[in-house]
Amino acid sequence: MNDVMPAGQIGRSLPRVEARAKVTGRAEYIHNLRLPGMLYAKIARSTIPHGRIKRIDASAAAAMPGVHSVVTGEDILKVIPEPYFGPAFHDQPILALGKVRFAGEPVAVVLAEDPKIAETASQQISIDYEELPAVYDEVEALTSTAYVHEALKPAGMFADLKHLAGKRDTNVALDYHLRRGDVDKAFAAADHVFEHVFRTPQQMHTPLEPHCAIADATSAGITVHSSTQTPSSVRVEIARLTGLPENRVRVRTAFLGGGFGAKVYVKMEALAVALSLLARRPVKVALTMEEQFFTISKHGSTFRIKSAVTKDGRITARYCEVIYNGGAYADIGPRVAQKSGFSAAGPYDIEHVAIDSFETYTNRPTAGALRGFGMPQLVWAYECHTDMIARALGLDPVEFRRKNLLRDGLPQATGTVLRDTATDAVLDRIVQRIGWGQPFDRGGGTIRRGRGIAIGMKASISPTTSVATIAVSADGSATLYCGTVDMGQGSTTALAQIAAEALSLDAEAVRVVAPDTDTTPYDMGTLGSRSTFHMGHAVRRAAEEVRGKLAAMAAEAGVPAGTNLPIAEIFRRKYGMQAGTIVGSGSFVPDYVPPNHDTGLTPNATPYWMSGGSGVEVEVDTETGQLRILRLVNVADCGTPINPKIVETQLTGAAVMQLGFTLSEEMVFTDGQLRNPNFADYKIPGIRDMPERLDGEAVASRQESGPYGAKGVGETGTFGVSPAIANAIEDAVGVRITELPITPEAVLRAIRAAAGDPLGDE
Amino acid sequence: MNDVMPAGQIGRSLPRVEARAKVTGRAEYIHNLRLPGMLYAKIARSTIPHGRIKRIDASAAAAMPGVHSVVTGEDILKVIPEPYFGPAFHDQPILALGKVRFAGEPVAVVLAEDPKIAETASQQISIDYEELPAVYDEVEALTSTAYVHEALKPAGMFADLKHLAGKRDTNVALDYHLRRGDVDKAFAAADHVFEHVFRTPQQMHTPLEPHCAIADATSAGITVHSSTQTPSSVRVEIARLTGLPENRVRVRTAFLGGGFGAKVYVKMEALAVALSLLARRPVKVALTMEEQFFTISKHGSTFRIKSAVTKDGRITARYCEVIYNGGAYADIGPRVAQKSGFSAAGPYDIEHVAIDSFETYTNRPTAGALRGFGMPQLVWAYECHTDMIARALGLDPVEFRRKNLLRDGLPQATGTVLRDTATDAVLDRIVQRIGWGQPFDRGGGTIRRGRGIAIGMKASISPTTSVATIAVSADGSATLYCGTVDMGQGSTTALAQIAAEALSLDAEAVRVVAPDTDTTPYDMGTLGSRSTFHMGHAVRRAAEEVRGKLAAMAAEAGVPAGTNLPIAEIFRRKYGMQAGTIVGSGSFVPDYVPPNHDTGLTPNATPYWMSGGSGVEVEVDTETGQLRILRLVNVADCGTPINPKIVETQLTGAAVMQLGFTLSEEMVFTDGQLRNPNFADYKIPGIRDMPERLDGEAVASRQESGPYGAKGVGETGTFGVSPAIANAIEDAVGVRITELPITPEAVLRAIRAAAGDPLGDE
Repeated sequence: MNDVMPAGQIGRSLPRVEARAKVTGRAEYIHNLRLPGMLYAKIARSTIPHGRIKRIDASAAAAMPGVHSVVTGEDILKVIPEPYFGPAFHDQPILALGKVRFAGEPVAVVLAEDPKIAETASQQISIDYEELPAVYDEVEALTSTAYVHEALKPAGMFADLKHLAGKRDTNVALDYHLRRGDVDKAFAAADHVFEHVFRTPQQMHTPLEPHCAIADATSAGITVHSSTQTPSSVRVEIARLTGLPENRVRVRTAFLGGGFGAKVYVKMEALAVALSLLARRPVKVALTMEEQFFTISKHGSTFRIKSAVTKDGRITARYCEVIYNGGAYADIGPRVAQKSGFSAAGPYDIEHVAIDSFETYTNRPTAGALRGFGMPQLVWAYECHTDMIARALGLDPVEFRRKNLLRDGLPQATGTVLRDTATDAVLDRIVQRIGWGQPFDRGGGTIRRGRGIAIGMKASISPTTSVATIAVSADGSATLYCGTVDMGQGSTTALAQIAAEALSLDAEAVRVVAPDTDTTPYDMGTLGSRSTFHMGHAVRRAAEEVRGKLAAMAAEAGVPAGTNLPIAEIFRRKYGMQAGTIVGSGSFVPDYVPPNHDTGLTPNATPYWMSGGSGVEVEVDTETGQLRILRLVNVADCGTPINPKIVETQLTGAAVMQLGFTLSEEMVFTDGQLRNPNFADYKIPGIRDMPERLDGEAVASRQESGPYGAKGVGETGTFGVSPAIANAIEDAVGVRITELPITPEAVLRAIRAAAGDPLGDE
Repeated sequence: MNDVMPAGQIGRSLPRVEARAKVTGRAEYIHNLRLPGMLYAKIARSTIPHGRIKRIDASAAAAMPGVHSVVTGEDILKVIPEPYFGPAFHDQPILALGKVRFAGEPVAVVLAEDPKIAETASQQISIDYEELPAVYDEVEALTSTAYVHEALKPAGMFADLKHLAGKRDTNVALDYHLRRGDVDKAFAAADHVFEHVFRTPQQMHTPLEPHCAIADATSAGITVHSSTQTPSSVRVEIARLTGLPENRVRVRTAFLGGGFGAKVYVKMEALAVALSLLARRPVKVALTMEEQFFTISKHGSTFRIKSAVTKDGRITARYCEVIYNGGAYADIGPRVAQKSGFSAAGPYDIEHVAIDSFETYTNRPTAGALRGFGMPQLVWAYECHTDMIARALGLDPVEFRRKNLLRDGLPQATGTVLRDTATDAVLDRIVQRIGWGQPFDRGGGTIRRGRGIAIGMKASISPTTSVATIAVSADGSATLYCGTVDMGQGSTTALAQIAAEALSLDAEAVRVVAPDTDTTPYDMGTLGSRSTFHMGHAVRRAAEEVRGKLAAMAAEAGVPAGTNLPIAEIFRRKYGMQAGTIVGSGSFVPDYVPPNHDTGLTPNATPYWMSGGSGVEVEVDTETGQLRILRLVNVADCGTPINPKIVETQLTGAAVMQLGFTLSEEMVFTDGQLRNPNFADYKIPGIRDMPERLDGEAVASRQESGPYGAKGVGETGTFGVSPAIANAIEDAVGVRITELPITPEAVLRAIRAAAGDPLGDE
């Protein structure tokens, strides 16, 4: 990039380019789209967690005025003979076929001219089941004979999953194992061994815009308008399901009202497509906020972690057993178990590591990717565990971490060496911002205050592909075509800045078009904090191709090399008028070596590591268990921030989201029936739940392998929040919570139990 | 292209790829589009041909329920300070400003929630004028002091028009002059000199879909949905008018219900944009069929042609004075006068040539491009003239043409040498198909039959630019992005065939997206028969870039060179899954040397020449003047036909269109008022007007400089029809018609005049 004259677009806190459109209500969301002749779909859902469908009586619904038709899984077979989808396993039927596997599973659909009619009619569908034994807990799932699926059906395109094909009598969708050094020997020789178990509940993404897909199937092909984070991946999957070539399947999106991983891969799109193929009209499938509970969720988990530690505080060995509750369908869960699994031992330099990570099937709503892709569950566990060890050994938790920290240049558990991973700087900055070690008001009486910190580290995603195209018009204005979906994270702005920097333009001169597989080239998806790095590279390469073509055009037009003409002037010299377009494209696929099947080791698990952590100060009311977060500092290493203001809001936004997962959010089940499928009983953070002081900050760093030194920051803000709070609670009141959410009731019970109060024992 | 394995896509008579969508009513036309919140515009038009606007009283219209607002030229100034547009001259106000220059000119617009309300209200607008002297005839316009414009305003971007800027006291928008050899001397030395004058009336394009533009102006930019043949050029012009960069102006189109040159450059788009900027809502401007009469038309013309001929029939010199009636605004008329001007001497090898070609302003509706870009008017004249000379000298018209024919390798009048121009083959084939020289039934009594032929030649367009992009998906399916507008001519199919050939795919595997400046790169426009050649080159080059990138990707993935892997397999090797997109682009701008300003000569006026001609057999009823076309054969040289079936329909379609211009179509004016602005009184051909036998045929030829040997064929079918018919009439009944249309009345008058009947003298 020596040939690029820096235009100073990197590090600009440019306001989001779509801000005006959003505040004036002109920004497009798929939910607002209506097509002529469109039918509205409403889903009738299973009322039982596991069973065979005996009979579906849709006659009353079908007879209602305004109802176009009622569609069942059997009907889907007429247009899609193999109607099973999924990004890792092809296990999820578009509508239940023969069986249901969780309470809330889509069984039938009413198509009507009006959404209200569809909803009313959907309640008239009567379904008889023969119930089957079920399993709900992830630990029980390992040994239960209540099998959720007859056999495993991994997607054919993945070589590393092929050995699972057809495996029967198991609820383990995927088991990942890492073996580094000799853990057993190290434990036997240890001064101290600590073992703890931590749990997290199933939780919700809760984007404010629920899933919506509108499909329009015609003889020319299929168009899907979808609130998706992964238009390219949805296109490939719809092409597979329908047997169409990719270029006959168009998947487009607009702005998203949040995604957080809920909207990756096929969700409502396959159903909308099947319904449109059947009805031969456009069909809209738009979920309510409440239907999200039955669509996709965050894995509940059980994490048993065991460490060998020397008396002076060096961790010599660690064993991690991670069991994820994947619910009824695999979705991307197997990859969560695998990818987060290899980072389960934390950002520590540990010689002997063993990890067993399991994705289990249960009769619950499906779990998939959620901001952090499993890591928040793991950091929650290992950073509580870290503090518990430090306390037990009488060491300062920060010093204990520093002594064991995995620093740049050292291999992570997989063997992949850290490069430009500023975990130490993150830790230092948290310590500095929170005033660790300095005296503070610890309260008194029933109001006690404490501090806690936590750090975490995550791999980025690999293998994966991003492609970008840039068109430069004859007046020098540029248009960027890339599939990165702006769901509020500011990617449109950041990618415009990268393109502008590479083209020596102002970011305002770069227009970014909305993802549309007809227009924007392939991108695996907007997920895993990958867009800044992966798409950023592709965008920069596209700009470089443009620059090369501009130079060639200038040379053709007789401009002497080295002449610094404005782009518009180069076009004029070449074409004699305001005419022409230069089109450049660039692609990025990081180097990657798949983990060894036996050891789980690889020299190249990820193109880069992201680290982040939190420092908190809490106040606990020992009489009520009420918790106030007085201060929350989220610090991350994102390399060079492309747009510092957006980085800051990513970190504070992630803090608030993780605060909900830490303090209040939990999907509560009784016998597989969700008891709180509404946002009165399932409590996401409101404005009154905010920390009194909340800060987000990136440390000064640079990812040399990244575009302009940058890397992702979408997930890092989620890592430290939960364990830092639990650690602060122990600091304040001396009790340890090992299961989320940390409700006032949980805190009070722990306090009472510590005091020998029988209420605490319950 | 030696590296391309031919897939046999060239020369395939593939059915049009959009055929199914069209016959099932699913093909998109802009006329059918409604946007949420859209207002409908109805234009109030000038009732006088030339005058100052004294007062516009819109109070009654504005007060009508459902009317949003009434907009005048003065209102436009609030959003577009310099509201004058035009592709060659910036002379046309979006709405009349101060003056009107033809009866039918847009003066005010009603915006309403409903189109019917807008129409009713538009009739309530009262406008007072002060009338000004006017000029209507193109010959009178040369000397009249009734000036239509105060001063000439050529578009700033054209160097060759700059000398005209600010020129006053003239109705000549552009005068083109060619001088080759010494015409005066040659005439003085001639055995015979022949001079004739031919006229054509102002006529109509009559696409079945009238002009429609919908503009949606927001803070993010402007989107225009338009039934345009030139999305890129409209984008550049709207960007200029509004001061926006190109990438904030999106112009998209869909299928067009015909274009024929009526829809090139800005027509309703600037008005729609101004209205949307004023109303801050989407605005639709959709014309009725009848409003087309006041929007754009075909030039009426007067052509004085004079030839020096030796007694054995060699043409030694020719003088051409061409005067086009451009109407009130220049539109692309100056280019018509210039570009057709230099071909006015016909496809003949003439040593001494002088040409004066004039575009005049008159107080009539504007004239612009129409299929043939002036050439049908000129071929009409020079091929009648050719027959008249042959007859006068007693030579066979075919032999006379052969003796003088401009053959491949010889310079055309401009000095540009013919390469791969198969005019002789065209003439031979017409002779063969029509059975020239063979006996036929010449009728008798009042029914007489005759035969006629005519040939013509036209330059293609230059300078001009086309850019295409091709994206290939991971499954090997391809998408072609190009701005060529399919208005019924089959370009989508032909360009898919070219892309497929270059990619070694089946044409069915290539999807062609609709023109959209957000998506498809720059293309000057779909006009001048340029798309097959110019865009065909760009498409082939884009495919070549794709092939290069595929080869590089295969090499990167370790595929040995020369291995012939399917595209999908190359992707899989590189990305490990069905992922990625290869994007290639290509551009084409033909070599071009502008004509010398003094001599009009250039060694490179055009990248290729197109020739075509007709043979007809007619039957004349000498009692009524009624004409029957017994047979019409249209033959053209289009190089290698990409899709022979489509070439054939282009030739027969052009024949029918030109038949209307020949036999019935004429805009009739009295004092600048159009007397027949409706399709009852302005008669286009119906099914009963078809020739009894109609054939279209391309001669075997190859344009070496064209993509796969191909060149355009959209206009060649118009050349020979009119003069061949007039020549056949003279052959049948011995009278010569020199002015179109050749109505039964005109024939009868000529017959009577020839017989000395006073009715014929009127």
